Amino acid sequence: MLANVKDIFVHPKAICESDQIGDRTRIWAFSHILEGAKIGEDCNICDGVFIENDVTVGDRVTIKSGVQLWDGIRVEDDVFIGPNATFTNDHFPRSRVWQQTLPVTHILSGASIGANATLLPGVTIGKGAMIGAGAVVTRDVPANAIFYGNPGKIHGYVGSDNGSPSRLGLEKSTNIDLDSELTGGARLIKLNRMSDSRGNLTVVDFKDELPFVPHRFFTVSEVPSQSVRGEHAHRICEQVLIILNGSVTVIIDDGKVRMQVLLSDPRIALFIPPLVWGIQFEFSSDAILGVFASHGYDAEDYIHSYDEFQAFMLDFGVKSKIEKTM
Amino acid sequence: MLANVKDIFVHPKAICESDQIGDRTRIWAFSHILEGAKIGEDCNICDGVFIENDVTVGDRVTIKSGVQLWDGIRVEDDVFIGPNATFTNDHFPRSRVWQQTLPVTHILSGASIGANATLLPGVTIGKGAMIGAGAVVTRDVPANAIFYGNPGKIHGYVGSDNGSPSRLGLEKSTNIDLDSELTGGARLIKLNRMSDSRGNLTVVDFKDELPFVPHRFFTVSEVPSQSVRGEHAHRICEQVLIILNGSVTVIIDDGKVRMQVLLSDPRIALFIPPLVWGIQFEFSSDAILGVFASHGYDAEDYIHSYDEFQAFMLDFGVKSKIEKTM
Amino acid sequence: MLANVKDIFVHPKAICESDQIGDRTRIWAFSHILEGAKIGEDCNICDGVFIENDVTVGDRVTIKSGVQLWDGIRVEDDVFIGPNATFTNDHFPRSRVWQQTLPVTHILSGASIGANATLLPGVTIGKGAMIGAGAVVTRDVPANAIFYGNPGKIHGYVGSDNGSPSRLGLEKSTNIDLDSELTGGARLIKLNRMSDSRGNLTVVDFKDELPFVPHRFFTVSEVPSQSVRGEHAHRICEQVLIILNGSVTVIIDDGKVRMQVLLSDPRIALFIPPLVWGIQFEFSSDAILGVFASHGYDAEDYIHSYDEFQAFMLDFGVKSKIEKTM
Amino acid sequence: MLANVKDIFVHPKAICESDQIGDRTRIWAFSHILEGAKIGEDCNICDGVFIENDVTVGDRVTIKSGVQLWDGIRVEDDVFIGPNATFTNDHFPRSRVWQQTLPVTHILSGASIGANATLLPGVTIGKGAMIGAGAVVTRDVPANAIFYGNPGKIHGYVGSDNGSPSRLGLEKSTNIDLDSELTGGARLIKLNRMSDSRGNLTVVDFKDELPFVPHRFFTVSEVPSQSVRGEHAHRICEQVLIILNGSVTVIIDDGKVRMQVLLSDPRIALFIPPLVWGIQFEFSSDAILGVFASHGYDAEDYIHSYDEFQAFMLDFGVKSKIEKTM
Amino acid sequence: MLANVKDIFVHPKAICESDQIGDRTRIWAFSHILEGAKIGEDCNICDGVFIENDVTVGDRVTIKSGVQLWDGIRVEDDVFIGPNATFTNDHFPRSRVWQQTLPVTHILSGASIGANATLLPGVTIGKGAMIGAGAVVTRDVPANAIFYGNPGKIHGYVGSDNGSPSRLGLEKSTNIDLDSELTGGARLIKLNRMSDSRGNLTVVDFKDELPFVPHRFFTVSEVPSQSVRGEHAHRICEQVLIILNGSVTVIIDDGKVRMQVLLSDPRIALFIPPLVWGIQFEFSSDAILGVFASHGYDAEDYIHSYDEFQAFMLDFGVKSKIEKTM
Amino acid sequence: MLANVKDIFVHPKAICESDQIGDRTRIWAFSHILEGAKIGEDCNICDGVFIENDVTVGDRVTIKSGVQLWDGIRVEDDVFIGPNATFTNDHFPRSRVWQQTLPVTHILSGASIGANATLLPGVTIGKGAMIGAGAVVTRDVPANAIFYGNPGKIHGYVGSDNGSPSRLGLEKSTNIDLDSELTGGARLIKLNRMSDSRGNLTVVDFKDELPFVPHRFFTVSEVPSQSVRGEHAHRICEQVLIILNGSVTVIIDDGKVRMQVLLSDPRIALFIPPLVWGIQFEFSSDAILGVFASHGYDAEDYIHSYDEFQAFMLDFGVKSKIEKTM
Repeated sequence: MLANVKDIFVHPKAICESDQIGDRTRIWAFSHILEGAKIGEDCNICDGVFIENDVTVGDRVTIKSGVQLWDGIRVEDDVFIGPNATFTNDHFPRSRVWQQTLPVTHILSGASIGANATLLPGVTIGKGAMIGAGAVVTRDVPANAIFYGNPGKIHGYVGSDNGSPSRLGLEKSTNIDLDSELTGGARLIKLNRMSDSRGNLTVVDFKDELPFVPHRFFTVSEVPSQSVRGEHAHRICEQVLIILNGSVTVIIDDGKVRMQVLLSDPRIALFIPPLVWGIQFEFSSDAILGVFASHGYDAEDYIHSYDEFQAFMLDFGVKSKIEKTM
Repeated sequence: MLANVKDIFVHPKAICESDQIGDRTRIWAFSHILEGAKIGEDCNICDGVFIENDVTVGDRVTIKSGVQLWDGIRVEDDVFIGPNATFTNDHFPRSRVWQQTLPVTHILSGASIGANATLLPGVTIGKGAMIGAGAVVTRDVPANAIFYGNPGKIHGYVGSDNGSPSRLGLEKSTNIDLDSELTGGARLIKLNRMSDSRGNLTVVDFKDELPFVPHRFFTVSEVPSQSVRGEHAHRICEQVLIILNGSVTVIIDDGKVRMQVLLSDPRIALFIPPLVWGIQFEFSSDAILGVFASHGYDAEDYIHSYDEFQAFMLDFGVKSKIEKTM
Repeated sequence: MLANVKDIFVHPKAICESDQIGDRTRIWAFSHILEGAKIGEDCNICDGVFIENDVTVGDRVTIKSGVQLWDGIRVEDDVFIGPNATFTNDHFPRSRVWQQTLPVTHILSGASIGANATLLPGVTIGKGAMIGAGAVVTRDVPANAIFYGNPGKIHGYVGSDNGSPSRLGLEKSTNIDLDSELTGGARLIKLNRMSDSRGNLTVVDFKDELPFVPHRFFTVSEVPSQSVRGEHAHRICEQVLIILNGSVTVIIDDGKVRMQVLLSDPRIALFIPPLVWGIQFEFSSDAILGVFASHGYDAEDYIHSYDEFQAFMLDFGVKSKIEKTM
Repeated sequence: MLANVKDIFVHPKAICESDQIGDRTRIWAFSHILEGAKIGEDCNICDGVFIENDVTVGDRVTIKSGVQLWDGIRVEDDVFIGPNATFTNDHFPRSRVWQQTLPVTHILSGASIGANATLLPGVTIGKGAMIGAGAVVTRDVPANAIFYGNPGKIHGYVGSDNGSPSRLGLEKSTNIDLDSELTGGARLIKLNRMSDSRGNLTVVDFKDELPFVPHRFFTVSEVPSQSVRGEHAHRICEQVLIILNGSVTVIIDDGKVRMQVLLSDPRIALFIPPLVWGIQFEFSSDAILGVFASHGYDAEDYIHSYDEFQAFMLDFGVKSKIEKTM
Repeated sequence: MLANVKDIFVHPKAICESDQIGDRTRIWAFSHILEGAKIGEDCNICDGVFIENDVTVGDRVTIKSGVQLWDGIRVEDDVFIGPNATFTNDHFPRSRVWQQTLPVTHILSGASIGANATLLPGVTIGKGAMIGAGAVVTRDVPANAIFYGNPGKIHGYVGSDNGSPSRLGLEKSTNIDLDSELTGGARLIKLNRMSDSRGNLTVVDFKDELPFVPHRFFTVSEVPSQSVRGEHAHRICEQVLIILNGSVTVIIDDGKVRMQVLLSDPRIALFIPPLVWGIQFEFSSDAILGVFASHGYDAEDYIHSYDEFQAFMLDFGVKSKIEKTM
Repeated sequence: MLANVKDIFVHPKAICESDQIGDRTRIWAFSHILEGAKIGEDCNICDGVFIENDVTVGDRVTIKSGVQLWDGIRVEDDVFIGPNATFTNDHFPRSRVWQQTLPVTHILSGASIGANATLLPGVTIGKGAMIGAGAVVTRDVPANAIFYGNPGKIHGYVGSDNGSPSRLGLEKSTNIDLDSELTGGARLIKLNRMSDSRGNLTVVDFKDELPFVPHRFFTVSEVPSQSVRGEHAHRICEQVLIILNGSVTVIIDDGKVRMQVLLSDPRIALFIPPLVWGIQFEFSSDAILGVFASHGYDAEDYIHSYDEFQAFMLDFGVKSKIEKTM
């Protein structure tokens, strides 16, 4: 039972059996916190929430009504969990069949789970991700992704300035300002195309048009529409992306500003310098993405974790605006 | 706390902090009504419901278990809200980030919200609309629409006789009873078609085949599949609808009886007299709807609100059966 | 044998057994004219031509080398027959199986048969038609049509000014000069279109936008790509053509000037006054052509023969420029 | 009120008004069992569950938080109902409009209902079926099916060894081990194909390639993607299945081991001996399945009920592993 | 030079250097027969024909104007060659590059070559085949085929009664007289189909529905549209053809009567007894033809030559009507 | 009249009015050469040929029967013109309408015109091109192209060894011999592909997989099916071609041996060294061809004329086998 803590509110019709509740946290009526649960400070546990034993909840977390947190759920700081959002911890539940080890579900800091969303066991919701209302989450969601539908897909990425999604769309028919500097030194490269009745010729002159000497070229194709590629930064390697067919959405993020670029015109390539976090998603069914890289493959060159990327950028003396606002 | 009210039932395990509860309303166990909420008469608030302060609920409303009504929810009379139906009031929720003004969600009179449906913030559910179980509602739903799916779409309109949906399907290959009188004096018109190896010729001879002298013709095309057109009645203007390509579903409603007609055969036109409420939806992607009108365009001739239409029809001495049953 | 004719040239190495050869006609080496053939004046029969008995050839006809005219071929004035163009007079030829009656092939005045074209038995090539080189002609070809391919199709209509084809193409994306007067008083009519996210609404207000009070509307659809419709003029009836879907090419011809108009934009209608010969062809597979007519159907109002039309126009005091130049 | 029962746990904050609760059943906080409900032994009723009067629940049933069981719900033994799974009992709910007879929903023994799933009124969930999290169930689900989506579809069948789904996928381009013995003596048969410029010739020489003398051939085609065929066993009849076009998934189950086989290569046939339960589903839209059978049609030869099949196999002295684990 | 032959007509302007011309053959003006050519009796060589040395022409052959027969052309009896029909004898002609051995072109007895048709070197035109006007013949044409287009394809087969094409079309929507006896004892077999919402089930019960015990089944698929299959008869083997997808045209010919059957309905199978010549052509692009055969493959059972087939049938005491009329 | 020339043969039944006939040329019966025509040496003018005045014919030309050469036709050395091949010199012929200037048709040296082909006015047939029998030629044909159909298209290129076409087809499913050396040092390169559930990754590691350091990359796409690209050689630049989507046929020609390679597998690239003449054609509608080049664009590096290329190669001491055999 809770004891010796001054600034905690537990509604008289709630049941709080844990004594690991942080300061200023409020627990409302008909909620039930089992003995082993650990809840951080400044949380708001609304009416009718149920929290099992093997659960940890960070600071400043909001949990709306009708939510249950089962054994194996890990909720980091600043998370929002909407009403009737539903968690699970058994891939193939059968009555009175218990698992020996539970899958662990992680809701990383700053993420939001929309109302009535359903999360399958063991998924990880990345930092700052936004799960839409009614979504069914069957797989991990990367940091800052906007994700909804049944089954859920990524539909965008959270922008940086005000927490709302922003999108820099480059439609084929639009006049594109090729001179604008993009996030982290990225920029668009207009390729030469000669068109006549015999078709189109699109040219990449390496010396004149690429900002580096490429040492590798690869293509990405036949990507299922719900899949996401990239999700890493390079320490040294530079890249130029050309959409050879179809379209793809590219996220570029230097730890301070995040932008979305829709590549759908083979004449417009995208240069991505090192130390820019890159994600590609929303591949059209016929998409073929070509990539020039300045270096051969080197596993050491990859930063695969967004956290590590942010840390790395801070070491570079870069003060992350994203981290502040979230 | 509730006081001085005779005919209200509050279960001993419920918490009712509001004193604005209507007569004969019952509030069941583990429900919690906050102080500012206003609840009408003859309501039934089932177990485990939570109602915040800035909420109004009309008369004869049923709210099943597991539902929460958040600040900004407005529920009119005779609404049904199914179990675990989930409301929201924040488009982009983040923990401990509060909005300055809340979006307001309206559930208009007679509507039903299916079990476990999810409503995004700020939507309006029209009078008598039926939201299916499990639906995710991302936009406004018109009066009497039958709406479900994720994301939800209109799939039909509520009929009139017994509250269940009815549909009068006119398939191309079916023997159609062209003599049947439809709602409000509407009827089908069979056009002449001459077919030979050079193609089809379909003729509308105005004097012989139209019930009025047309003064205007217009076409409706490229309507997105989820869109709805029409949703108005004319005071004087008569119309004949011809589906020139593809198919469309038409609702005709004279305030007493509502019918659905599937137009998919260019040889079968539909005459709609004035004072019939008309809706077109489920346009096929290639639909082209042609309309002959007896009068030129006159903004004064339109009745755009279904409420106004129903009132107008009552003034005509028409006793609306729909209004009674809902 | 040919006798008592002054101004005829027969090459010494030709064989001319007919004595029905018109003045100034020349017959060149290795040609062979059988006894019954009738040849007009000013003809040019090149080397190696063979003409059977039951053949008539009009005045001013050119027949190039390698051509044979079999029994049953009727060639009118001013016809051009290219080299190696091949005629037939038996649908199902078997050696030594003779037909009781021969099919008759008509090449009407002013037509041209391209080099190495093949004509199946019994076809009629209309006045002024142009059969392309290498074409295989399996069916009748209307007056002035440009026709080629295997099997052959109409690909255009011969213009009026200089005998070469001209085409007034109205592409969707083009700035159209709506003020230009077309052949015979025809003109384009720009219709109002309201477009929003719910689709397009195109309006024809009869009083304001049509030059007559319509009494009939008909649609033409599912026309096979090789088919031709229209091919008549009205004495009194006025028409407005609107392409509701797809595209169609329209010929308008007042007996003096012939124009082609490509209708592919539902917002651009075509007004055709009476006494204009009209043809529609090159219907796209999805074409739906709507027509408003100023009068109900009246068989007396139609002029179905282009010859009759030309005669009618001359009675009107219209001096036909076409007739002169061909 | 519950009385005279020794080994039942009712949490002090729960309300249990029924006295028909089986031994060892536990009822947790904020749950509410109405007076008429019948609950079996060894059940676990978690926090915040609501159970109406006309409800029966079998033995060893788990009901997670946020679930309501309305009048007309029948839950058999060993069922699992996930958190916030939502039941309904009115097809067209309107506030204060009551039905005269309720549709009855059956959850048969051993089935599991995933978290936050929604069940429409009157459906039957077959024995051992697995309804996925977030599914919307609009129709009956057969025994052992794995079913999810909105609207839900069958996506597989529960395997036998450990209760998890397994799938033996035979892709066209894969090296297939044709020698492996499948469930119940089934096996794959490689057919000869001769290909030349005139197309492909695929041969089934009965004597050499079929393990029986066929007496019947039939084709199955135009099966809607959500449909399921088969679902029976034969007592005597042998079959060979050939996918002539498209693809189909086949379940074979001898009462002990259940396997899935994807047939998508016309050269690979599947032999199914008698006394093997067979199901076909996930037909592609162009699928044509050909079947050779060793006997003519004989209604007596069919076992249509999986229960009867299991019983029959036990009489054969076959100890069913499936039955034990479920 | 021609000498000592009584009943031969050579026009004075023709050049006939061969003395191997049959009785009653006529050679018209400007024709040129080289010394080695052999021409049969009752032939008609029209104006302007050129015949080289290594050419044989049978009896009763008609050769119209503008035709050249080059070295290596073999023309059998009763052949018709239309005007300007063009033969070749060099696959890859270059000026002054001579071939060591010439390809030999065979025009078998009774065939007709349409006007202005072009034959590539070395093709064989089968007995009684009809090459349409303007056709380009790039490959062998089977007996009695009707063949045209560029490149040419088979479009039908010549009927038997009167030499004109006839076609027995069995459209899906047509009432088919299943009782009619077809050529040579062939007949249609209506298969049972059970259709419900789960798709169609088409059954072939061997004992009840097949007139033989099948020992082989094969499918024919992915046949290019211009290809022809079959073209043989069996001595003993019986077959049943079922079109499982798409459509195909089947010729059945017992040496007396020839019929075409369009198979496009999977429910209508075609039984073909032995000693019926069978051809399949006009395969739709998605056609899959299934065939049951009463015997395993036996090369001895096949009659591959139509001549041999006809001879075989005569030995059977069958008086061939075809042979007489052609 | 022809005079003072010793070694010319004119058949007694021919008419030769020109005295500009080269030595050893033979003119056969029923041919007619007008006075202005110029014919080279060693020509063979077969029976029934007609040649107008404004015509030049080179040396060693063969003209088969039924051919007419009209004013404006220019035939170079070593050309073959098949029987009944038909030329034209008026785009829009009308009887007795004469053109002021004639279009000029060029048949360049070594080309062949197939039997019964039709050439529209003013086309140029490139050196060594092969026009198939029955072709209708509506546009210029490049050197060595194999061209047929109505309308005609390029279907291949003439091979080198024996003047017949050869084709090296690389089908996706075929075992490709990657080690074989191709024309001029070209060779295939197998690329690595990693495939997983996220799609396919195809890698070109420049150092390991390319035989040069690329300095340029370009793509070719949306090429109409009848178009031809390339048709040049580089002096220094090396290239690697990768078909990223669809398929394309590539000609490689080092002046001695010519090969065709079908690229349709993104994993198989084609290396082309300098001094190899390259042509790409038969692009599929969805083809995207990527090309790596060893050097930046340099107009000086291109050899655009095949004649110049052959001369260049001879300077290199390369004895051209092609030139000899043609």
